[in-house]
Amino acid sequence: MPKDLPPHIDAADLTAHLIRCPSVTPEEGGALVLLQELLEAGGFRCTRVDRGGVSNLFARWGDKGHERTFGFNGHTDVVPVGDADAWTKPPFSGELDADGVIWGRGATDMKSGVAAFVAAAIDFVRETPPEGAVILAITGDEEGESIDGTTALLDWMDDNNEKMSVCLVGEPTCPDRMGEMIKIGRRGAMTAHFTVTGVQGHSAYPHRANNPLPALARLMDRLASHELDQGTEHFDPSTLAIVTIDTGNPASNVIPAKTRASVNIRFNDTHTSASLTNWLRAEADKVAAEFGVTIDMGLKISGEAFLTPPGELSDLVSKAVQTETNVTPTLSTTGGTSDARFVKNHCPVVEFGLVGHFMHQVDERVPAAQVHQLKSIYTRILRDYFT
Amino acid sequence: MPKDLPPHIDAADLTAHLIRCPSVTPEEGGALVLLQELLEAGGFRCTRVDRGGVSNLFARWGDKGHERTFGFNGHTDVVPVGDADAWTKPPFSGELDADGVIWGRGATDMKSGVAAFVAAAIDFVRETPPEGAVILAITGDEEGESIDGTTALLDWMDDNNEKMSVCLVGEPTCPDRMGEMIKIGRRGAMTAHFTVTGVQGHSAYPHRANNPLPALARLMDRLASHELDQGTEHFDPSTLAIVTIDTGNPASNVIPAKTRASVNIRFNDTHTSASLTNWLRAEADKVAAEFGVTIDMGLKISGEAFLTPPGELSDLVSKAVQTETNVTPTLSTTGGTSDARFVKNHCPVVEFGLVGHFMHQVDERVPAAQVHQLKSIYTRILRDYFT
Ligand SMILES: [Zn+2]
Ligand SMILES: [Zn+2]
Repeated sequence: MPKDLPPHIDAADLTAHLIRCPSVTPEEGGALVLLQELLEAGGFRCTRVDRGGVSNLFARWGDKGHERTFGFNGHTDVVPVGDADAWTKPPFSGELDADGVIWGRGATDMKSGVAAFVAAAIDFVRETPPEGAVILAITGDEEGESIDGTTALLDWMDDNNEKMSVCLVGEPTCPDRMGEMIKIGRRGAMTAHFTVTGVQGHSAYPHRANNPLPALARLMDRLASHELDQGTEHFDPSTLAIVTIDTGNPASNVIPAKTRASVNIRFNDTHTSASLTNWLRAEADKVAAEFGVTIDMGLKISGEAFLTPPGELSDLVSKAVQTETNVTPTLSTTGGTSDARFVKNHCPVVEFGLVGHFMHQVDERVPAAQVHQLKSIYTRILRDYFT
Repeated sequence: MPKDLPPHIDAADLTAHLIRCPSVTPEEGGALVLLQELLEAGGFRCTRVDRGGVSNLFARWGDKGHERTFGFNGHTDVVPVGDADAWTKPPFSGELDADGVIWGRGATDMKSGVAAFVAAAIDFVRETPPEGAVILAITGDEEGESIDGTTALLDWMDDNNEKMSVCLVGEPTCPDRMGEMIKIGRRGAMTAHFTVTGVQGHSAYPHRANNPLPALARLMDRLASHELDQGTEHFDPSTLAIVTIDTGNPASNVIPAKTRASVNIRFNDTHTSASLTNWLRAEADKVAAEFGVTIDMGLKISGEAFLTPPGELSDLVSKAVQTETNVTPTLSTTGGTSDARFVKNHCPVVEFGLVGHFMHQVDERVPAAQVHQLKSIYTRILRDYFT
């Protein structure tokens, strides 16, 4: 990228440049450095907000604390390439092929999204300087632990009286067709790890042992059979998946003392991680009493369910998407977690980005035209927001 | 041991000599060589019946094919010593301590039993030569795969028209007190290995996957909750133990494609391995249909349930035990498997031996007095059998 800005930032070209930065979490890989240079040339004040070995970039155009401050959030880190030999093109090549497709890790998730909103923001503020401010909060830690990523940016913003009025997360949101889905919330996610302890013994004398496995089987059957809810106005039904059961006993004549299982729950706004924890604990206690075993439970809460109710922000994004794509987006709360779960504590947040095909896969790639279209949508959103 | 036999064979001393032979399966360790030398000096015709890298010893006193042929069966192989440093005395020392206790691997399981019946047989036939024959079938492969051990001896006996009329297996049978238990049968044992296959997926999209774990939990719960029977005249109720469930999925956001479980069944004469196989397969099929998964089942049949109904042989042994110990033995079918499961296809078989404490444990040991008492019981059994 030249230091002197071209008349318009080419978002597809910027995507390719970003792909060439090998920014596998937690490596910065040059991606944030490149963006900072570009944003500063575009009149944005930039601050690197690094924490815990992770790099993050805060950028603002316009006055601090303006009541109309539009925010974008996204990440430049990518998941590992896996088997590099399995790729058709080198995974950090950012190559544009004859069909106009850009190849490489991060092509869809989400260097294209970052490139699109950076390009849109720079071009928008220099062409039609708005009455207000634009903030870009870009993290290098979304695919990893997400402890020192967007959270670090939001903490730093709190400490420095930086505030977004609304925020758009640029993650890929469309399942198959550009424009078809906006996310206005996400289900919560949590994992519970159960350890059932009984008394070891010989399979020939089961009455002298207390096998933890029947208790675990009963508990898992009860949890998996339970209907958590039937869905709510904006959410699908909550789901519970047993993800693993492990004992590691190689001897068929031995009854083991311990066994473990993990369940992963994706929950809607009917629940909180606290209400689900109470339910899990109660079910475990019932089974522990029935079988005379001990059941320990460890928890990892990935995020609570949240919703930005349909309204001004989703209307703004919907209208821009529809105008640019002729597709009416649905307002959805499906899918995994994203950094929107942190942003929602700061301001209203929705997510919109391109088609999520090839995310985290070999041969990740994106049509350049889709990146250009995404920039147009983001530009229209900015324009509509400030008028 | 001297080549010239002493006036009486000291069974405790012979136990100590056998312990000094490090005959961890499949090593012969000198144990069978020692016994052969002794038995030949005592007038027994001996044949080594080695097969598949395992050593076995057949010995007969008296005429081949005699209609009154009393047989003894036992093993000289032992399980590994485990952590040798954890032993109070070296595990192959065969040391007699000040309390008259013989220490070492095999002290109870079952070099003492073999020493007692070898000593009893040699002394009995030279002091009161019976009208009949005595056969000793001693294997070096009971603790291992048991494929080329007692089975090899019985195969060889079939091929050579060698036949025991009845057989006593000298395994330790008494739980706590010398004389309290004779085994007249054993439950059968089998292990079923289940593999449940569904469709892998992401925990956030469980409807696109088909998780094999709920199906496995349901199947295991059903199997473990099922009452196989309430016991029979001579048998305890059959038992089923889930021994392991394993998946090996480290990622809480991934629904695995496969999971595995093993159940071990100890069954009485209500069942056969075939009838249980049908039941397991039917239960697996029901669950597979309910959940739309595939359930494969692998089987290992360790042995069928068998019983030598109380009668002449058990009466003979009971009477001798009671006379020598003043304890009335119960006729039991409890416990794990033993080589009696092979012998029962050849002739009526019961098991009687000393107290099974310390079997397979560190600091395995036996009071010398108990070994002497066991020799006396075996001697009385031989005397009563032939008169
Ligand atoms: Zn992403
Ligand atoms: Zn044994």
